[in-house]
Amino acid sequence: MSLLTVGTVAFDTIETPYGKAEMVVGGAALYASIAASHFTDTINLVSVVGDDFPQVEMDFMKARGINLEGLQIKEGEKSFFWSGRYHDNMNQRDTLVTDLNVLADFDPILPESYKNSKFVMLGNLTPEIQMKVVEQMKNPKLVVLDTMNFWMDVALDGLKKVLKKVDVLTINDEEARQLSGEYSLVKAAKVIHKMGPEFLVIKKGEHGALLFHKDKIFSAPALPLADVFDPTGAGDTFAGGFIGYLASKNSVSFENMKRALIYGSAMASFCVEDFSIGRMKGLKKADINKRLKEFVRLTKFDL
Amino acid sequence: MSLLTVGTVAFDTIETPYGKAEMVVGGAALYASIAASHFTDTINLVSVVGDDFPQVEMDFMKARGINLEGLQIKEGEKSFFWSGRYHDNMNQRDTLVTDLNVLADFDPILPESYKNSKFVMLGNLTPEIQMKVVEQMKNPKLVVLDTMNFWMDVALDGLKKVLKKVDVLTINDEEARQLSGEYSLVKAAKVIHKMGPEFLVIKKGEHGALLFHKDKIFSAPALPLADVFDPTGAGDTFAGGFIGYLASKNSVSFENMKRALIYGSAMASFCVEDFSIGRMKGLKKADINKRLKEFVRLTKFDL
Repeated sequence: MSLLTVGTVAFDTIETPYGKAEMVVGGAALYASIAASHFTDTINLVSVVGDDFPQVEMDFMKARGINLEGLQIKEGEKSFFWSGRYHDNMNQRDTLVTDLNVLADFDPILPESYKNSKFVMLGNLTPEIQMKVVEQMKNPKLVVLDTMNFWMDVALDGLKKVLKKVDVLTINDEEARQLSGEYSLVKAAKVIHKMGPEFLVIKKGEHGALLFHKDKIFSAPALPLADVFDPTGAGDTFAGGFIGYLASKNSVSFENMKRALIYGSAMASFCVEDFSIGRMKGLKKADINKRLKEFVRLTKFDL
Repeated sequence: MSLLTVGTVAFDTIETPYGKAEMVVGGAALYASIAASHFTDTINLVSVVGDDFPQVEMDFMKARGINLEGLQIKEGEKSFFWSGRYHDNMNQRDTLVTDLNVLADFDPILPESYKNSKFVMLGNLTPEIQMKVVEQMKNPKLVVLDTMNFWMDVALDGLKKVLKKVDVLTINDEEARQLSGEYSLVKAAKVIHKMGPEFLVIKKGEHGALLFHKDKIFSAPALPLADVFDPTGAGDTFAGGFIGYLASKNSVSFENMKRALIYGSAMASFCVEDFSIGRMKGLKKADINKRLKEFVRLTKFDL
């Protein structure tokens, strides 16, 4: 089933205890689209880059079935750039540079063919842009929104407005607490359900993810890894795997959401094994299936 | 199968955002023994209290099948006392008072009948006392040791010595990192296996627990709860449920260890629902079975 992804397509410079990667490609829409492309084949990407964005990377996306008709290329301008340095524990990072560049006046205009997409991934961006996208959609079956604490600090009203149009919210545990004002995640989910999203996915990084829907809860683990090279993009890759799986099944049932959480977690576990999309580039179906089986082994028990 | 538990039997004064409980009973051996008593019936407790420890609580333990022959009662002395205050997030706490009292010169002398116990729970105490206990055991089938960062700071050599005699180590993630010098828990487990314990259980509180054995990993979730009243004793209750289940099956297989992790997590989820052993007191088999089913629902998925 058709999937629309919106978010950044950008350059990152990243330092981790394992090394440094300069001006590598990144961005929420890029990571999410590539992850989703392993499961579903009509992916309509909406974003903006400058004329500095490498043709080879756009060709790679196209080859993976990602439609770039909605990727605006601004002549004479620069792509969004983020630079960060991870601490030794890989859970904390300092932002060194954020250059909005083309993102500063991004107006997400959807090609006509995009407006009938059934699944919509609103990657982390200003709530205003996320709203502009969702308002152009004709009759989506599932809208997933990713956001972060920054927008809760500076654009809470706009965020609350767009949340009313959203089926699934993906945020981390601290963000769920901030947004709801509740420390208990069970209570936080109830508050957030009332804001709009019937489903809440709480991303906990190395501790896995939780899915809340009505009175149901599902807990997906993260795969313990010997080496985490670079966590950048893991959350977007998770979201892309999640919605890509659901789009492939054309389903929004709780049972499929549970599976989607495992698929998303599996994709995220690949993402962190290299800088940028390095690990995602050579990824085969067999690799993914093998990794999914590791998640089964990791969690399966009989009482 | 017979189970020996050693650790503190004590008084706690606890403040949480939900209220204050003064001079309530607690201690690692008390929590672990009570949790284990729901699964196995010969529990040999080794500890020390003053003459201030309430008879009614000792009667409760006896009624649950806990043998108190090895509980030394020091006339004219006071029981170990700990007082702490939890932060709003319940994950951090400040110790306000630690009065060793009878614990200061505790010599764990095992009654003859205890020495043949097949399962041994060495609750958090000085490594020296843990060693004295394990050296008195005749032919234990499984020795589980719980410890904390404090002993890594002040008694690392003693801890490393006793670890050589231990099959299962239970610590939290930060402690696993400190003990091994590795940030990745996968790498930490490999280092710790070489120190002695063939099995490593990493307790992550609200994020669940991980079991490492050779190249196998099992991840157990924690049950998301609307209210956590008081986390005190949750780790010891977890350990008691874990070893109590294994003792009941007289098994140390990896499959049973996985189940034991779920049983321990279920018991811990009760412990935190009230101060002290309040929730554990009226606990029925049916409550436990219902909770175990919640763990199945929380984690079960089919690919």
